[in-house]
Amino acid sequence: MEIGPLAVALGDPAGIGPEIVAKAWDAREQYGLLPFFAVGDRRSIETVWPGPIRQIASPDEAAACFGTALPLIQIEDTGLIIPGQPDLAGARCALDSLELAAGLARSPMVGGLVTAPVAKHQLYAIGFTHPGQTEFVAERCGVSKTNAIMMLAGPTLRTVPITTHIPLRSVVDHLTVELIVAKARATDRGLTRNFGIEHPRLAIAGFNPHAGEQGAIGREEIELILPAIEILRAEGINIAGPLAADTMFHARARALYDCALCLYHDQALIPLKTLHFDEGVNITLGLPIVRTAPDHGTAFSIAGRNKANPGAMIAAIALAGEAARNRLIYA
Amino acid sequence: MEIGPLAVALGDPAGIGPEIVAKAWDAREQYGLLPFFAVGDRRSIETVWPGPIRQIASPDEAAACFGTALPLIQIEDTGLIIPGQPDLAGARCALDSLELAAGLARSPMVGGLVTAPVAKHQLYAIGFTHPGQTEFVAERCGVSKTNAIMMLAGPTLRTVPITTHIPLRSVVDHLTVELIVAKARATDRGLTRNFGIEHPRLAIAGFNPHAGEQGAIGREEIELILPAIEILRAEGINIAGPLAADTMFHARARALYDCALCLYHDQALIPLKTLHFDEGVNITLGLPIVRTAPDHGTAFSIAGRNKANPGAMIAAIALAGEAARNRLIYA
Repeated sequence: MEIGPLAVALGDPAGIGPEIVAKAWDAREQYGLLPFFAVGDRRSIETVWPGPIRQIASPDEAAACFGTALPLIQIEDTGLIIPGQPDLAGARCALDSLELAAGLARSPMVGGLVTAPVAKHQLYAIGFTHPGQTEFVAERCGVSKTNAIMMLAGPTLRTVPITTHIPLRSVVDHLTVELIVAKARATDRGLTRNFGIEHPRLAIAGFNPHAGEQGAIGREEIELILPAIEILRAEGINIAGPLAADTMFHARARALYDCALCLYHDQALIPLKTLHFDEGVNITLGLPIVRTAPDHGTAFSIAGRNKANPGAMIAAIALAGEAARNRLIYA
Repeated sequence: MEIGPLAVALGDPAGIGPEIVAKAWDAREQYGLLPFFAVGDRRSIETVWPGPIRQIASPDEAAACFGTALPLIQIEDTGLIIPGQPDLAGARCALDSLELAAGLARSPMVGGLVTAPVAKHQLYAIGFTHPGQTEFVAERCGVSKTNAIMMLAGPTLRTVPITTHIPLRSVVDHLTVELIVAKARATDRGLTRNFGIEHPRLAIAGFNPHAGEQGAIGREEIELILPAIEILRAEGINIAGPLAADTMFHARARALYDCALCLYHDQALIPLKTLHFDEGVNITLGLPIVRTAPDHGTAFSIAGRNKANPGAMIAAIALAGEAARNRLIYA
């Protein structure tokens, strides 16, 4: 079976999304990217990029023209587009692009979904009620948001934050044995389906300094993490830990696992972005479709100045293609 | 004024301390290390290293023999020394070594103190009541433990954890505006005295994901960090923040500050050890003496097998020498 083209939602038209998607098309041969098509307002690309765009009506037209022009499905947008100046019309355009791209990605004609960054505050202002694009896509796929797992993937490290955008002080109120087990299971399965790793090796971080030193510096390891590990191992999942968080991310330590499960946002994101700031990809595990995104924001401050680094977008498109291929094998 | 030799406490005799101190002596010319002398039981070195040791009675004998033998002040120890097998006699030897070395370091004849790793559990078992060596040395110097600041220094990053070895859930109970201000002041001054940075640039991390997003994901930034920054700036201290912790440690971001102030242990230690696992140095700021240590543990599992990497010990001795020199200028 052939893999369909990837749908790439352009994100906020005033952010760097349109520029990095266009630059990824420029780099399609260098990185051997699968055909993809943009979903958004073509003006947002034309404003920042001089290359050829081919407007298409359906994903099945994308592959034929991908070699000579960036295929694009147009979202009608009546706003002005000024790079670096987000507004509500742009937020509506971003949401329409996401909605259409996510819908198309549910069809077997499309290989997967890649999303460029949006401005959450603008989306909230037009009535968007999801914390972010991930939860929106999960809902469109009929998957509860607890089962849609955010993984951050770079060339030498993958991490999954078990809790995400909540105040650090309330992380302890959200952590449960069940939550850890659910996220670890989905990660284990996601590593096989999306990355083709047949026998994934997981590692889970401790919550406290030095992973609590047997209870001397906190008890979350004893009360939550170790019981979760016991359940997971009984299911045949290969998981090490709880490991001291500060000593598990250097090069030799990273070589020992395929993904690090972390208890809170910064525990997962600090090592990932310290190592792979310009190439981190956010991939959603647990969905019926492939979905990736560059792990950075709209960067309004540099939008429209030809300064945006497309590295993470290229990595997101490449990983979506790789995941689509692996899903044919490890369905 | 000439800088006296550095006193190097050998730490637990069954750990890797004796081996890495001896290996640092082997590397003295390659790294241009200032003369130093070991304080501990010579048998702990002889068991793991075949090089020449010269027993001395006083620090002033160290410089003359440093070129041809590792100078050592002997601590009488009646225990058996088996690398990798710590015991209470070894803990007593480690404590006596620390006590003598710290005492010698208070004399102007000695340039500074470097400490090899100890086994805290063993020390607690013989009645040691300090959380670690840092607090012990602070007390011997007449400095309260809140004013003795732990800084972790690597080749491209320095961090100061504002709280250290406490459960993560109780960090919020320890953080106060006053504590942040006190640690930042001491860091500012310490960067000048120890590193010779005349106008230090500090950066402080946020506590919550994305530094709280203006209160949307937690309020510690608004209630604690911003008020502290205001006080510090009014004193003329150059401090940026609160910065999103996940995006402040990649290479371009690190170039913008001399030290990152972090709110909790792992926030400071994860980036430091991810980047500089084999060369991280713990330097205590706020003391009347120079004190450094390699930022790793006793590594009993590899002790006595000639596998220990002396990189961090060499870096600790080199930094102690550098700090001693800077203190002559920036007293």
